[in-house]
Amino acid sequence: MQKTRIILALDVLQRAKAISVVDETSQYIDAVKINWPLVLGAGSRIITEISEKSPVICDFKIADIPNTNKLIVEQAMKLGAAAVIAHGFTGTDSLKACVDASGGKVFVVTEMSHPGGKEFTSVNAERIATMAREQGAMGIVAPATRPERIAKMREIVGPLQIISPGVGAQGGKASDALGYGADFVIVGRTIYDSDRPAEAAQKIAREIEDFLIGK
Amino acid sequence: MQKTRIILALDVLQRAKAISVVDETSQYIDAVKINWPLVLGAGSRIITEISEKSPVICDFKIADIPNTNKLIVEQAMKLGAAAVIAHGFTGTDSLKACVDASGGKVFVVTEMSHPGGKEFTSVNAERIATMAREQGAMGIVAPATRPERIAKMREIVGPLQIISPGVGAQGGKASDALGYGADFVIVGRTIYDSDRPAEAAQKIAREIEDFLIGK
Repeated sequence: MQKTRIILALDVLQRAKAISVVDETSQYIDAVKINWPLVLGAGSRIITEISEKSPVICDFKIADIPNTNKLIVEQAMKLGAAAVIAHGFTGTDSLKACVDASGGKVFVVTEMSHPGGKEFTSVNAERIATMAREQGAMGIVAPATRPERIAKMREIVGPLQIISPGVGAQGGKASDALGYGADFVIVGRTIYDSDRPAEAAQKIAREIEDFLIGK
Repeated sequence: MQKTRIILALDVLQRAKAISVVDETSQYIDAVKINWPLVLGAGSRIITEISEKSPVICDFKIADIPNTNKLIVEQAMKLGAAAVIAHGFTGTDSLKACVDASGGKVFVVTEMSHPGGKEFTSVNAERIATMAREQGAMGIVAPATRPERIAKMREIVGPLQIISPGVGAQGGKASDALGYGADFVIVGRTIYDSDRPAEAAQKIAREIEDFLIGK
């Protein structure tokens, strides 16, 4: 990874659309993040197919008991995932099962940026970030829409990777997220809803490059 | 539903095994609960295939932002799910998205019975049960291994359905779960790991029948 600092959130439902966006943009992105709606819409082999073009992060928000978490992660890795995204609120043993089954390739959700995220996740975010570090996760997910929180999370997780959604259509800025300590920004609609996904991705990649050079 | 009060937790990975267990046991169960490992292992069409034999509850522990939750539920229902299982801790708006997309066919996880479930879920269980009722969910999930908690949950959710995992191999008793207020018990390994799944299911169905008659 770490070519452009962009992770493409491929939040589409159809195989054809998914593949065409990846084909057009893969040179401008570091990884593709896919979620359950695409797996349900296109079948689980879509993980394998995309993984042949770009590293795939399965954003499965895994949140079950340890044995089920283990099975989900094993299946995802077998299908070609490079990493998975799991929740921390189901507890230390559930997160550990994900870490063990993936060889540490887990990003942990700390808090979520939608309004309901304030009810239960925000208040536990720092505890969950600490757990992510202690359990040997690869990194955490922290929203670009609250960049000051990224800085706080960086303090807690130290050298772990921080990947940051909410850039583009949701209002977050790549430069803010990276400036406050994120390693990668996650961009969805701004790229896949564009008439020219490659140009849209390249534009963000250039903005990031300019920002990082100027830093 | 409500023939034997048994929901089969079909925690297997292979299509052939899944179909054979359902074929053998469908007359002794009210519904089949499937989880992500089976979808990843056998493909999402397994939902449709099983739904032609028994109502399917997609135990997807849905825990994402509202729009993603909506898409997951829509896809699951389109594939034939009768209901889904969602988490409440991602907040009111996320749960509401599941309720709206499924026409209310949502069971909400209140607390979880594994050790890590005590860290973040147990403390919020009553608040989440209240949310389930207020948002118009069909029911909640509460562990048979802590039957006194089922009674507490019944107090909170009133007429909602309570489905209760942990019966059998995990140590919970069907009679305890039902006696303390559950509507359905969820049984997995005791049935699908049996050499004779039909007999195993029938045996539990008879125990439940005896218990309910004696009550």
